[in-house]
Amino acid sequence: MTAEIIAVGSELLTPQRVDTNSLFLTDQLNGLGVEVVTKSVVGDDLDRLADTVRRAIAQSEIVVLCGGLGPTQDDLTRDAVAAALDRKLVYHPEITEVLEQRFAQLRRKMAEVNKRQAFLIEGAEMLPNDRGTAPGQWIDDSGSHVILLPGPPHEMQAMFTRQCLPRLARIVPRQVIRTLVLRVAGMPESDLDQLIAPVYKKYDNPATTILAAAGDLQIHLRARCPTEGEAEALLAEVGGPIELLLGERIYSRNGQPLEEVVGNLLRERHSTLSVAESASGGLLGERITSVPGSSDYFLGGFITYASRMKVEWLGVPEEIIAEFGAVSKETAEAMALGARRRTGSTYALSITGVAGPDSGGEQAPVGTIYVGLADPAGCTVLHRQFFGDRTRIRQFATQMALDMLRRKCAQAAIA
Amino acid sequence: MTAEIIAVGSELLTPQRVDTNSLFLTDQLNGLGVEVVTKSVVGDDLDRLADTVRRAIAQSEIVVLCGGLGPTQDDLTRDAVAAALDRKLVYHPEITEVLEQRFAQLRRKMAEVNKRQAFLIEGAEMLPNDRGTAPGQWIDDSGSHVILLPGPPHEMQAMFTRQCLPRLARIVPRQVIRTLVLRVAGMPESDLDQLIAPVYKKYDNPATTILAAAGDLQIHLRARCPTEGEAEALLAEVGGPIELLLGERIYSRNGQPLEEVVGNLLRERHSTLSVAESASGGLLGERITSVPGSSDYFLGGFITYASRMKVEWLGVPEEIIAEFGAVSKETAEAMALGARRRTGSTYALSITGVAGPDSGGEQAPVGTIYVGLADPAGCTVLHRQFFGDRTRIRQFATQMALDMLRRKCAQAAIA
Repeated sequence: MTAEIIAVGSELLTPQRVDTNSLFLTDQLNGLGVEVVTKSVVGDDLDRLADTVRRAIAQSEIVVLCGGLGPTQDDLTRDAVAAALDRKLVYHPEITEVLEQRFAQLRRKMAEVNKRQAFLIEGAEMLPNDRGTAPGQWIDDSGSHVILLPGPPHEMQAMFTRQCLPRLARIVPRQVIRTLVLRVAGMPESDLDQLIAPVYKKYDNPATTILAAAGDLQIHLRARCPTEGEAEALLAEVGGPIELLLGERIYSRNGQPLEEVVGNLLRERHSTLSVAESASGGLLGERITSVPGSSDYFLGGFITYASRMKVEWLGVPEEIIAEFGAVSKETAEAMALGARRRTGSTYALSITGVAGPDSGGEQAPVGTIYVGLADPAGCTVLHRQFFGDRTRIRQFATQMALDMLRRKCAQAAIA
Repeated sequence: MTAEIIAVGSELLTPQRVDTNSLFLTDQLNGLGVEVVTKSVVGDDLDRLADTVRRAIAQSEIVVLCGGLGPTQDDLTRDAVAAALDRKLVYHPEITEVLEQRFAQLRRKMAEVNKRQAFLIEGAEMLPNDRGTAPGQWIDDSGSHVILLPGPPHEMQAMFTRQCLPRLARIVPRQVIRTLVLRVAGMPESDLDQLIAPVYKKYDNPATTILAAAGDLQIHLRARCPTEGEAEALLAEVGGPIELLLGERIYSRNGQPLEEVVGNLLRERHSTLSVAESASGGLLGERITSVPGSSDYFLGGFITYASRMKVEWLGVPEEIIAEFGAVSKETAEAMALGARRRTGSTYALSITGVAGPDSGGEQAPVGTIYVGLADPAGCTVLHRQFFGDRTRIRQFATQMALDMLRRKCAQAAIA
C-alpha cells in the first residue's frame, strides 16, 4: 500500500518554512508498512489543491492532507477535497455545539467564523480534535482513504495517533516493522559511521539510518518481517555487534532523550541535582525540567549571566575571575561547587563558555565550553571546543553536561 | 509567472529528511517576482516522476527539478523528463571528455557509469557544473522552461546563480515583491482574524497569511508590483489600517522575535533584567539569552524549582507558600520582588504555574500560570489559564512574561 502526503498553506511556500508534519506522518505510515511515494506542498488555492487531491487519489490508496482546516477564509482544504471528490459540504450543528463548549471553557465567546469548522464533506467521518478547534475528517472514496488533519503539529499528531492509526491498522495488510534506536552522545557523526558501517552495510534489512544533531547521534535500525520474532531476531543480529562497538557511549536504547535518562538515574539513586549556567543561559535547566516529574530530583539553578552574580550567588572568588577569566576551568569548578553548596544537592553541573557570535571580551575563542560537575567527592571539569552558531554551541554544551552526569551516575552505581 | 519545484530522491521520502533546496530556490525565484505555487518530493521512480513533470508543465511556466542527475541506476531525472516531454536522450561525447578531465584532475579514473551523465535531452542546453560532475540542463518546451539541477546544495546553488538567474532575468517580466511582517503576542488566532479580516479580505494583492504558534501570531502581507514604490504603497494601504486595529498588541514590524524586541527596549532605556522561574524551568532565561549581546541587560536568574529554593534564594515567606500555595498570585509577586532585590535589576520577571501533564500536588489546574513583574514602582501579577501539553504551556508562559515586560517598558517611555 502507498500513501501521499499533501501539506496545505501558502506559508509553506515561502523561503522560510518547510513542511515537517510529513516527517511524523511518514514515520507513522512506514511503521504500518505503508510507503510514502509523493509529498506535495500546495498554497491556499482552491483549484490547485483540488487538482492535487484528484491526482493523489488516482495514484495512492492513502492520501493525507495537513492544514487548511482553520476557521478563516484562506482555510480551503474542506472545499478543495469536496470539489475533488465531487461531494457537497454539509453543516453539522452538533460540531458547532462542541466548539461553543470548548470556547466557553476558555471563558471566550466563539467567533462566527468558527462555524466554518462545522462543515463536513458528505459521507465523511468526523475525527475529534482534543487539542484544538479544527475537527479532522476521514473519507473513503472509490478504494482510497482520504484523511484531513489540522496543521498545528501537536493537534495533528494527537489526532493521527488516536483516530487514524487504529483505523489504518484495520485496513493495511499486516506486516511487522520493528525499530531499534540507539542514542549516542558526544561523538562526531563521521567517527561513528566509520566505526559501525562495517556491521550495518552488510544488511538491506534492517535498514540503517544515522541522524545527527549537536552532540547527539541516533542510529535507527528498521527491520521489516512477516513476524515479530523474525524482526526481533534480525535487530539482535545487527544491533548486538553495534552495541558492543559503542559500549557506554550509548545512552539510550529506546529513544529516550538524554535529559530523561539522566533523570531516571538520579531518581533511582535518590540523588538530587542543581545547575549553575552562564553560556547556556537557562537551557540546561529547561532541558532537565522538560521531563515531567523532574521536581523529584531537580532542586533548581542559577543563571549567573553577569560575573557579579557568579560572585554574589555562587561564591566564586573574585580573584579567580580576575586571574583566569569567567570562561575558565577554575570558574567552572567554583560555579559547580558553589551551586552544590548553596542547594545541598548531591550533584551540581556548571556551564561557562563563549556561545558567540562574538567573544564578548573573553580571551577564549567562540565555542569554548567548560563544564563542571561537583559531587560528594569533589569536582571534575571538562573543556571542549565546539563549532557552529550560538544555538548549536549552547546545545553542544548542555549535551556535554548531561552526558558527564550520566557517566558519573553510572560509575557511582558500579563503585 | 509561476514556478513549481520538484525534489527528486527516495531519501527525501524518509522520516528523517526534508527538502531544503526548495527554500533557496523559492527565495531566488521570489526575488525575480516569480511565485512558487507547488513543491513536490518524488522518489526514484520513473513513471511517477514523469507524471509529476507533465502536470507541472501544464500548470507553471517554470519547472525546476533538483536531484537525480548522478551516474547511478537510480538517478532517473534525465529519463523521466525526456519521457514527459516525449523527447529522446542524446549522448554527447564532448561532455564525457570534460568529465574525464575532471576525474584526471582528482587523480582518479572515471567509472564507466559516469557516461550516463553525458546524455542530454534532445534540444536541451547544457548547464556546466563547476562544483561536481553532474551537468544541469535547460529545456524550453511549449511555453514552459524546464530546468534540471543537481541535488547537492552547493552544486545546485552555484549552478542556479551563475547559469539560471541570468537566463530567467531575460524571460521574467520585471516585478517587485515586498513583504510586511507584523508580530502579535497574547491573542488567539481567531480573534485576530475576526478583527483584521475586514481589511485584508478586500485585497488579493498583497496576499495575507496568518501564522500561529503558542502565544505568538505572525501576519505576512506580500505585495507584488511592477515597481518598489507601488509595492510599498500597497503595503502601507493595507498594513496601515491593520496596524491601527492592533495597536500596541503588535510587538514587531520587521520579523524580530519578542525576546529581541524586549532586549532592544531594555538596552535603549539602560535598564536591566533578572528572572525567577519555576514552571518554565529556565526557558525564560534561555529565550532572553538566545539573543546575542543579551549580557548588556540580562543579569541572571533563579530556577527555583523546589519550594525551599523559593524561600532560601528569593526570600519568599514560608507562610505565603503555606497559605496560598507555590502556584499563586502571592508567590509570583514575592518571587519577582525577591529576584529584583537579590540582583538589583531594574525589572524582574517571575513565572510560577502548573506545566503538566499532572498537577504535581498543586491545587491549581494544569495550565495555570502566574507571571509577576517587579519594577521600581512595585509589582504586578497576571494570571492566565492555558491549554496544551507541557512544552506548549511553558512557551505560552514565557511569551506572556516577555510581552508583559514589553508593555511595561513602552509605558515607562511614555511616562
